[in-house]
Amino acid sequence: MTPTITAFERSPDGGKGLARDTRVRWALEEVGQPYEVRLVSFGAMKEPAHLALHPFGQIPTYEEGDLALFETGAIVFHIAERHAGLLPDDANARARAITWMFAALNSVEPVILDLFTVKVLEGDKPWRKERQPLAEDRVRNRLGQLSARLGDADWLDGAFSAGDLMMVSVLLRVKASGILDEFPNLAAYVARGEARPAYQRAFAAQLAINAAPAS
Amino acid sequence: MTPTITAFERSPDGGKGLARDTRVRWALEEVGQPYEVRLVSFGAMKEPAHLALHPFGQIPTYEEGDLALFETGAIVFHIAERHAGLLPDDANARARAITWMFAALNSVEPVILDLFTVKVLEGDKPWRKERQPLAEDRVRNRLGQLSARLGDADWLDGAFSAGDLMMVSVLLRVKASGILDEFPNLAAYVARGEARPAYQRAFAAQLAINAAPAS
Repeated sequence: MTPTITAFERSPDGGKGLARDTRVRWALEEVGQPYEVRLVSFGAMKEPAHLALHPFGQIPTYEEGDLALFETGAIVFHIAERHAGLLPDDANARARAITWMFAALNSVEPVILDLFTVKVLEGDKPWRKERQPLAEDRVRNRLGQLSARLGDADWLDGAFSAGDLMMVSVLLRVKASGILDEFPNLAAYVARGEARPAYQRAFAAQLAINAAPAS
Repeated sequence: MTPTITAFERSPDGGKGLARDTRVRWALEEVGQPYEVRLVSFGAMKEPAHLALHPFGQIPTYEEGDLALFETGAIVFHIAERHAGLLPDDANARARAITWMFAALNSVEPVILDLFTVKVLEGDKPWRKERQPLAEDRVRNRLGQLSARLGDADWLDGAFSAGDLMMVSVLLRVKASGILDEFPNLAAYVARGEARPAYQRAFAAQLAINAAPAS
């Protein structure tokens, strides 16, 4: 059965691939699962039909027969569990790969999201100038710890996994800030992720929507 | 094999149960798995021996034979996968329970953590007074969406699951702020979680450590 995901009718990032549907597209491309996309407008996202699928009124969602999921981490995990290619067979290695999924979403992404709060949600506030370096230092601290753990390895724990997919996706959000480049091994790690054919296809698919002329 | 978890030698919350080892203790208690605890000081947490277990220098960790995990979400999921009682048998219901675990950690906890940034990390900054209501409103908005989804149900999706364990644990972090009580169904939901015998045992176990006289 072909799953259907939702994505922004027009992504706020203009097609840079930072909207979370890219993570799900990437996972589906890694495992070779075709999918359908239903585009949702900002208005429709907050209406009852979409809220029934996604209680927080966001994208992506995932529908497959009588299963409906929201929350990117859960969708990627669902895909990784049901297809080969994103989780190791060995039980301990599998548990560690899942650990990196949660680490990306609960230990790394929150400090990065605070930069969005500083720059966008509170971008017009008088404290922005003084608060931004504090938030950036918290990102630096976390990325320094991650950099130390990654070391010279290609991926976080052996072969590429859903954990790397999620961590690379989260780190892409600080690429534009310049902070990622302060950690050359992390910048190279993200570049390795972006170079994967499955990522390239996922990126192109979301760009094709967002690069289209506004209707 | 009895697993060993790590916990604060002295929790910053003084035994209120908000340190993340409580979540792991709760999961272990729900499934009836005995465990050992190794206490770690703030200093030791940042030293190489602990960083080898936990790259971000935090607690809890989980060791079981040759498996070593960090990241609370991953540890609770590992426990839930290997024992009955925290995930439904039905595949779709299981995927939805896992969705709530990720939702707690990536959609609800980050807005709550921002309150910690406002009040503690930046508690002495001149913008605190003006920024706190903004952060509180973001918590309110997210909790309002969660409250609408929960409605009159006892748990988020059928029977109590690891998703509820994680969501209740995250919501406990806003109980003291008074915001939780603005949503009576969420406050009752959290109270139902706290009333579970397994939670009571987990809470008592961490309190026994943190209520002990300082050495």
